[in-house]
Amino acid sequence: MEASGYRGKALTLLKDKGVRVGSNVIVKTNVQEYKGIIMPRYELADDTHIVIKLGNGYNIGISIENILDIVRIDRLSEEKDMLYEVKEVKSSIVRSDRACIALISTGGTIASKIDYRTGGVRAALTAEELNSMVPELSDIASIDSYVLLQEYSENITCKHWSIIADYVKDIIAEGYDGIIIAHGTDTMHYTSAALSFALQNLPIPVVLVGSQRSSDRPSSDAASNLIGATLFASHANVAGVFVAMHASSSDDKIAVHIGTRVRKNHTSSRDAFESIDINPIALIDLNSRSIDMSNIVALPRDKKRTPYVKSRFDERVALIKFHPNFDPSIIDYLVAKGYRGLIIEGTGLGHVSKYCFDSLRSAIEHNMLVYMTSQCIWGRLRMTVYDTGRDLLSIGVIPLNMLSEVAYAKLSWALANFSLEEAKEVMLKDIAMEFK
Amino acid sequence: MEASGYRGKALTLLKDKGVRVGSNVIVKTNVQEYKGIIMPRYELADDTHIVIKLGNGYNIGISIENILDIVRIDRLSEEKDMLYEVKEVKSSIVRSDRACIALISTGGTIASKIDYRTGGVRAALTAEELNSMVPELSDIASIDSYVLLQEYSENITCKHWSIIADYVKDIIAEGYDGIIIAHGTDTMHYTSAALSFALQNLPIPVVLVGSQRSSDRPSSDAASNLIGATLFASHANVAGVFVAMHASSSDDKIAVHIGTRVRKNHTSSRDAFESIDINPIALIDLNSRSIDMSNIVALPRDKKRTPYVKSRFDERVALIKFHPNFDPSIIDYLVAKGYRGLIIEGTGLGHVSKYCFDSLRSAIEHNMLVYMTSQCIWGRLRMTVYDTGRDLLSIGVIPLNMLSEVAYAKLSWALANFSLEEAKEVMLKDIAMEFK
Repeated sequence: MEASGYRGKALTLLKDKGVRVGSNVIVKTNVQEYKGIIMPRYELADDTHIVIKLGNGYNIGISIENILDIVRIDRLSEEKDMLYEVKEVKSSIVRSDRACIALISTGGTIASKIDYRTGGVRAALTAEELNSMVPELSDIASIDSYVLLQEYSENITCKHWSIIADYVKDIIAEGYDGIIIAHGTDTMHYTSAALSFALQNLPIPVVLVGSQRSSDRPSSDAASNLIGATLFASHANVAGVFVAMHASSSDDKIAVHIGTRVRKNHTSSRDAFESIDINPIALIDLNSRSIDMSNIVALPRDKKRTPYVKSRFDERVALIKFHPNFDPSIIDYLVAKGYRGLIIEGTGLGHVSKYCFDSLRSAIEHNMLVYMTSQCIWGRLRMTVYDTGRDLLSIGVIPLNMLSEVAYAKLSWALANFSLEEAKEVMLKDIAMEFK
Repeated sequence: MEASGYRGKALTLLKDKGVRVGSNVIVKTNVQEYKGIIMPRYELADDTHIVIKLGNGYNIGISIENILDIVRIDRLSEEKDMLYEVKEVKSSIVRSDRACIALISTGGTIASKIDYRTGGVRAALTAEELNSMVPELSDIASIDSYVLLQEYSENITCKHWSIIADYVKDIIAEGYDGIIIAHGTDTMHYTSAALSFALQNLPIPVVLVGSQRSSDRPSSDAASNLIGATLFASHANVAGVFVAMHASSSDDKIAVHIGTRVRKNHTSSRDAFESIDINPIALIDLNSRSIDMSNIVALPRDKKRTPYVKSRFDERVALIKFHPNFDPSIIDYLVAKGYRGLIIEGTGLGHVSKYCFDSLRSAIEHNMLVYMTSQCIWGRLRMTVYDTGRDLLSIGVIPLNMLSEVAYAKLSWALANFSLEEAKEVMLKDIAMEFK
């Protein structure tokens, strides 16, 4: 019981009521009744709340001050579908009917919890805790947990991309049916793009998943996103790198996006991630546990396939958003500093002001690879329509019909793993469905 | 006739058929029949096409090689609603029942035409030509045309913002009921934000309008956007700076956006401009010519009101998009160069990596004003939730709940027109409905 994180007053209350973590209960408060499962807490959590997972998948923290009574309802047959058990986390692959999934934690909100002193959130949970927090996962798959990093995603760099890619390669060799990577949402789409290039010809799905509210917070989306990711990693007949997050503000549909075609488009909503200029590759209904695949043609899963791994990234690549009055001397500065690649997030169909032309010409003369994307986000580039675009083409700026974030990851990857001439070719070749 | 731009073979054909610019005709080709109005062309246009405005508002260019016959249908009473006249452009305000509108051209696609040699587009049309190209405008308002600039909008800088603001101030003093600014779409939302700060307490609406396809191109959206802008500038009971563009891919609804709450979100579609985290302030139905105002509370029009003009902008302000592996020495570089302001387009709720903290701290110690926005585009910042945000707040980075483009224009404006201390206050004050 103590291991489940309850202590002090909260532990006393649970003992008094004869219930434990995993019990299906009705909690009566002075405001309303909550029906759900008592969830584990963390060692450092306060002793004045208990956490209940409601039938809709939300976790809710209830102050014990407000609790009038807790009634166990395990024995009620009509509550059958709400009966879960907190199963022990497997530490090695158990062969069974269930899929074997590796859950790799890198940090982020999904693996974080509220600091009750400050009201803020800290990165703290391990993949194991995460796994044990969502007991439904063990119904779907046998899940092994690995802790690789504990970083908020805004701190993830090229170096971490290499570390994650190499780790995934090793984990794949263990023979899993799918891999889930818990990751902060802020830069999850950059990482999914980077992994899409670093890990080609994958035998199984590698699914990045995050949450917009921390896992022990009432109404966290962590559990539903994890369940969706696990269903997809276990059963979808595709291989590659994907992102699984809420499809809408409702809690029963998870969208799975292609790793190179997705963007975080909202600061806080559950459905912040959107596929850009393409449909999600799958929609998962958490009620029926069904996976509705789109008609996007992707590599089917095949555990015998050998992945093609090129996991290096070059730090000397920049992504620059053009704006009115943009200072082209920033480009000169990067050239002088030895930068090898530049993604310019231009305007409209792929433009920057004519006063940038000299700096761009100089960068290209210094063997910098310079590519254009658009800050519009949606739609394709077309640099032959206007004078400006034609001038940029003649200078040697190359349009890339992909998301800026994806173009950045690809250029960093191409320059690290190939010669300059090869990199030029690779940049225009479809590697991971990245082109719009 | 010659003044309307037709010459050579095309002119001969029109003369042979007894029709002229403005005639309501059926053009029979070897493929199909087109019903519409013969439109004027430009002096330098080729002599092998005639241009017809169809009933749906599209212009279409028809090669005279394919024309079997042209039949005048002016006399058919059922064609009443297709009868337009090309009216002479007024060169001074004529008092009448119609509103008096000033159309100021700054360049961009709306004032450009196809170069038939290259198939590309060049900035060339004047406001006068634009006005005369859309004969419907004269039904709605008496329009005076002014040519201020001939720039694609990617070339518009702070200096142009000042020029446009000062010019608009002078034009307002002439007593117009509304002002329309034809502008390239690439940075129209930056300019609309800049003008929203530079021109406060406006007596009348100032409506920026652009087009995604050039005005003499078949299926240009120039005419419908201009008609929508003219209806709004003439009749909507609001003052301020707005953007009028297609509301959807269909050609009969124009959305009018608040100048500080709009973004170009698609490279090529007609409905590329979207209001962010707010509804458009008006939807215009071009069929019924009705204006459906939203419930957004805005300043009503009042020609007696005196505008409050502060039209300077400081060039020493940068907008930087953070990305994984972002090089914070770029911030040091800007500080060393004497930059006074920085908008950081962070991730998620307003984050950048911890390895940027030292450079940000140094920038703030050098009296640089540093603000945070989010590259998510939608949603509000919240920098108190995570360690990273709290650390950034303690360093002195200030969250701005507005679009990055708007924040950039506002900071450039605030630093040019106020002392440093005043600018800090102004940045957090609602000036033009810019806060989300």
